[in-house]
Amino acid sequence: MHCPDRKGIIADVTQFIHTNNGNIIYIDQYVDRAHKSFFMRVVVESEFNKTSFEDFKDSFNLYIGTSYSLKCSFYLAEEIANVAVFVSKYDHCLYDILSQQRSGKLACNIPFILSNHNDLNLIAKQFDIPFYHIPIEKDNKAEAEEKQFELLKNYKIDSIVLARYMQIVSNSLIDAYPNEIINIHHSFLPAFPGAKPYHSAFDRGVKIIGATSHYVTEKLDSGPIIEQDIVRVSHKHEVNDYILKGQDLERIVLLRALKQHCDRKIMVYNNKTVIFN
Amino acid sequence: MHCPDRKGIIADVTQFIHTNNGNIIYIDQYVDRAHKSFFMRVVVESEFNKTSFEDFKDSFNLYIGTSYSLKCSFYLAEEIANVAVFVSKYDHCLYDILSQQRSGKLACNIPFILSNHNDLNLIAKQFDIPFYHIPIEKDNKAEAEEKQFELLKNYKIDSIVLARYMQIVSNSLIDAYPNEIINIHHSFLPAFPGAKPYHSAFDRGVKIIGATSHYVTEKLDSGPIIEQDIVRVSHKHEVNDYILKGQDLERIVLLRALKQHCDRKIMVYNNKTVIFN
Amino acid sequence: MHCPDRKGIIADVTQFIHTNNGNIIYIDQYVDRAHKSFFMRVVVESEFNKTSFEDFKDSFNLYIGTSYSLKCSFYLAEEIANVAVFVSKYDHCLYDILSQQRSGKLACNIPFILSNHNDLNLIAKQFDIPFYHIPIEKDNKAEAEEKQFELLKNYKIDSIVLARYMQIVSNSLIDAYPNEIINIHHSFLPAFPGAKPYHSAFDRGVKIIGATSHYVTEKLDSGPIIEQDIVRVSHKHEVNDYILKGQDLERIVLLRALKQHCDRKIMVYNNKTVIFN
Amino acid sequence: MHCPDRKGIIADVTQFIHTNNGNIIYIDQYVDRAHKSFFMRVVVESEFNKTSFEDFKDSFNLYIGTSYSLKCSFYLAEEIANVAVFVSKYDHCLYDILSQQRSGKLACNIPFILSNHNDLNLIAKQFDIPFYHIPIEKDNKAEAEEKQFELLKNYKIDSIVLARYMQIVSNSLIDAYPNEIINIHHSFLPAFPGAKPYHSAFDRGVKIIGATSHYVTEKLDSGPIIEQDIVRVSHKHEVNDYILKGQDLERIVLLRALKQHCDRKIMVYNNKTVIFN
Repeated sequence: MHCPDRKGIIADVTQFIHTNNGNIIYIDQYVDRAHKSFFMRVVVESEFNKTSFEDFKDSFNLYIGTSYSLKCSFYLAEEIANVAVFVSKYDHCLYDILSQQRSGKLACNIPFILSNHNDLNLIAKQFDIPFYHIPIEKDNKAEAEEKQFELLKNYKIDSIVLARYMQIVSNSLIDAYPNEIINIHHSFLPAFPGAKPYHSAFDRGVKIIGATSHYVTEKLDSGPIIEQDIVRVSHKHEVNDYILKGQDLERIVLLRALKQHCDRKIMVYNNKTVIFN
Repeated sequence: MHCPDRKGIIADVTQFIHTNNGNIIYIDQYVDRAHKSFFMRVVVESEFNKTSFEDFKDSFNLYIGTSYSLKCSFYLAEEIANVAVFVSKYDHCLYDILSQQRSGKLACNIPFILSNHNDLNLIAKQFDIPFYHIPIEKDNKAEAEEKQFELLKNYKIDSIVLARYMQIVSNSLIDAYPNEIINIHHSFLPAFPGAKPYHSAFDRGVKIIGATSHYVTEKLDSGPIIEQDIVRVSHKHEVNDYILKGQDLERIVLLRALKQHCDRKIMVYNNKTVIFN
Repeated sequence: MHCPDRKGIIADVTQFIHTNNGNIIYIDQYVDRAHKSFFMRVVVESEFNKTSFEDFKDSFNLYIGTSYSLKCSFYLAEEIANVAVFVSKYDHCLYDILSQQRSGKLACNIPFILSNHNDLNLIAKQFDIPFYHIPIEKDNKAEAEEKQFELLKNYKIDSIVLARYMQIVSNSLIDAYPNEIINIHHSFLPAFPGAKPYHSAFDRGVKIIGATSHYVTEKLDSGPIIEQDIVRVSHKHEVNDYILKGQDLERIVLLRALKQHCDRKIMVYNNKTVIFN
Repeated sequence: MHCPDRKGIIADVTQFIHTNNGNIIYIDQYVDRAHKSFFMRVVVESEFNKTSFEDFKDSFNLYIGTSYSLKCSFYLAEEIANVAVFVSKYDHCLYDILSQQRSGKLACNIPFILSNHNDLNLIAKQFDIPFYHIPIEKDNKAEAEEKQFELLKNYKIDSIVLARYMQIVSNSLIDAYPNEIINIHHSFLPAFPGAKPYHSAFDRGVKIIGATSHYVTEKLDSGPIIEQDIVRVSHKHEVNDYILKGQDLERIVLLRALKQHCDRKIMVYNNKTVIFN
C-alpha cells in the first residue's frame, strides 16, 4: 500500500488487521520524506476463504483506504503469477529461469516461451514448455506484435520477462503491462545504455562491470531499477571475457529481480522501486 | 523493545505513540518465530523536554510495557555515549575511530585511550585525548584492573571498544559492561578463533579472509557477532599480505560495528544480535 | 610445471619454447619463497600435430625438465576432460553444470550422472545423459563402489564432481583420483565442516555465510580449497533462508572451481591450490 | 616496460637479467593482442649500488631496449616518491592518507598539503605537515597556479593526489604531471561524471553506488581508471546516506589507487591502466 504520509496510519492499519482476526507476520514501511509519501508491505496470517478475503478487502478499503487515500494491492499467497519468457539466442538466462522455476524456487507459472529466433526451441522442449517462434522483420512488426498480444491474452499472462530478448518492445506492449515487463541490461546502468555495453566498458577501461534488471518503460534502459550487481575485471580481460563474466552476472541479477517481482515485494513509485525484502 | 510475541502489540505501541503526540519516523520490527520473541525499534519525533520524556516513559511502561511484559530502552537522540578505547600497539583501528569521531561521523565521546603499551601515546596527543598507559604483567593484573575500573568510573564510561587490544579482558570487566564491550577479531569467526588467525588462514589455504566484530563475553571470541566482512586472497599472497589486507578490513568492520552500537541500533538476544539499520 | 626454485628457469623455459617455434601467449609464475618452490603455467601457440607434440614434450623434458627437476604436465587445448557428475537429491548444482556445459562454457564432456537416489533421473533425461542409480546402504557399500569403479573405467573418466553428493567417498576412490574429485561444501571452510553447516551458522549468529569448493582428500572437508564465496545474512533470515541463499552460492562456487579445473589452471601443492587465472 | 609485441622478448629479458646476476622475484606480463602491445613488470634482487644500477640500465637499454623498441622505467626500491596532497574541506580521504603513510603502509613522502580553504589546517598540524592555503577565486587563478607550481618545484614533487580537491586543475598542471595526478571521483564512472553525482544517483534510483580513482587528463572525469569499488544502497537511503556511505568508499578506493601508484605497479596505455598486482 502507499499513500500520502499522515500520522496514525500504522496504528490504524495494524489495529484494523488485529480487529479482523489477522496476525501480522511481516510488516515493513518506508516514508519518502521528500515527497511525503508512505509505503507499507504487510503479510497477514488469517483463515480467509474467497468470500471472507473479498469482505476483508472491501472493509479495509472502506474504513482505512478512503480516509488515507490509500492505494493498496491484495494478494492471496497461493495465487501465483503467469510469466511469459521472451528470448532471442542467448540461453544462460533462460536456463536459470526454467531450472529455478522447476525446482520450486521461483513462485510463478511459465505458460510459454517466445522468441524471434528458433535456436532455443530445444531448451523449451527439454523443459516441456510451449515455444512460439515469432520472427521480427522490418516489415512484419505490427503482425508479429498482434500474435504476441494474442498469446499473452490466451495464456492470461500477468508479467513478461525479457531474458536477453534482443528486440525493443513496443509502446503498446509497455502500456498493456505497466511495471510488469522485466528486462536485464548487460551494464551497470546508467553507464553504457543501449547496444554493445561490454564493448563500451572495455574501451573505457573500467575495473568493474555490471548488470541491471529494470522494469521496461518507454524510454530505453531508463525504467525503474530493480536489482544490480557487479564483477571485477582487469586489463587482462578481453571483450570476450567481459561477455562471459557478464553472462554469469546477468542470469543472477535477472533471477533475483524476477523472484522479488513474483513474491510481490516491489512497489514502483516516481520511476524508482521500493523493495521490501 | 522486546517481549514475548503477541497479537496486537504493533497496533498498541503505535497507537500509544500517536495518542501521545509522537510522530513515528522509523519503525522496524522482527519476530523470532522459533522463540516466539518480538523485537521492535521505533524512532519518534516529539517535543520532549526532560520532564515530559520521563512522563512518556512512565506512561508507556504502565500502559504498554506491563501488559506485554516488554523490556524497553529509551534514549534521547542528543544523549551520546562515552566510549573508552583500549589499544595495544596497532594503530590502524585507533586512527579510524579517532578521525571518524572527530569528523562527526561517530556519535560518541571518547574521554580517554588506554593501552598496555606506550606506543600509541603520540596518536592520542595528535588528537588531544588523555592517554593512560597501564602495563599488564603476569603479577600485576589485579592492580591494573583496579586502575582500569577507576578510570571507567571517573570518566562515566558507557561502552568500551577493544581496538586491537591484545589482552584478554577479565570476567569482572565483562560483567560490569554486558554487551557494551566491542572487540575486533582478525578472522572470519568461527573460523580461526584465538591467536594468530592470519597464520592459520594461510596454512589452511583459504581463498577469502575475514574480520569479525563482536560483543565480548566470557567465552573467548564467542560473543554475539555484530559485523563481518571479507577480502579475497590468492596463492600469491604471503602471511604478511594477509595481515596488511586484514588490517584494512579490521578497521572498516570495527568502525561499522561501533557506529551501529553508538546509534543504538543493536539488540542482543540469545547470544546473537538483532540489528535494525 | 613446478620444481625447486632456481635462478634462470624462466629464461631457459621461454628460450626453449621460442627456439622450438612456440609463441608464448600466456605466462604466469609463482614462487613459494618459504618452500623455495617454483610454479609456472605457460600457454603456447604452435603448429603441433600429434607427433610433433610428443617430440616437443620429450625434448622439453630432456633439456629443461631434467636439469631443473621439473614436474610438468602437457595438454593440447583440444583434448578436454571426461567428468562424471555425482549427485543425491539436490538439483541446483546439477542444473548449472549441465546447462553451462551444454552452452559450451564448461570445457568438458559429461559421459554420465551417478546418484544414490533416483530423483534427478528426470534432469538427466532432459539433457539426454546416461543416469546410473546406485543406492548406498549400510551393507552394500563395497558392491556399490565396485559398480562405480566399473562405470568410471568404462567411460574413461578423468575427473569427478560431487554436485551435492551426500555420501562420503571411499579412500580407494580418492586414491584412484588424486586431486581429480571436486566437492562443494556448503559453508565457509574451515568454519562449520561436516553435517548441517547452515544450521550451525544460524545458531552461531554469523552475518555472512559461505560455500567452499575443494579437492577431496581422505580427511573430511580438509582438502585443498579451490574457490570460496560468501553472501550476507541478517537476523531476519531463518535457517531456510540460509539454505536458499546458500544454494545460489553453492552452484556458482562449484561451477567456478570446475571451470578452472577443466581449463587446467589449478596446481595442487602442500594441500593448497595454486590457480593461474 | 612496454613495446610492440614480438616473439622472444620474455626469453631475452629474463636471460639478460639472469646473466647480469639479477634474481627475478616477480614477473608478470600482459599482451594486448588487439594492439599487439607487450607489457611486463619485473622485480629483481641484485647487489646494486648507484653506479652498477646506472650501468645495468645503460646495458639493458643498449642490448634489449633498442632491439625491441622497449620503453622501460627503472626504480630502486628504496627511492620513494614525493606526493603532494590537495584538499578542499572534506577530511575523510586526507585522514586516511596521512594515517596510512604515518603507519608505514603507504610508500611515499608527503612534503605538504595544499588547500583552497583553511578548514583542514588543523589536521595538517596534527600530523606536523606543512599546510599551504591558496584560495582560488575567479580572478586569481593564474596567480594561484603560479604559487602551486612554485611549491611543487621547491618540494620536488613527483605526484599529486587530489583528495576531494573540489577544483578543476589546469591543463598546464596536467601537462606538467602526466599520469601523476590521481583523483577520486565520487561515482561509478562513466556513470554520473561532473558535479553532485550522489544526487544524480539518488534521482536515478540505482541500487549500487560507487567511487572511481583515476589519473587526471584534460577531459573531465575521463582519465585512465585505476580503481573502482561499490556499495549497495536501497530505497531506504536518502541522499545524505549516499554521501556518508560514499565517503567510506572514496577513502578506500583512493588509498588503494595511491598505494599501487606509489608501488609503481601501474602503466598507462591508450587511456587505460595496466596494473600488475
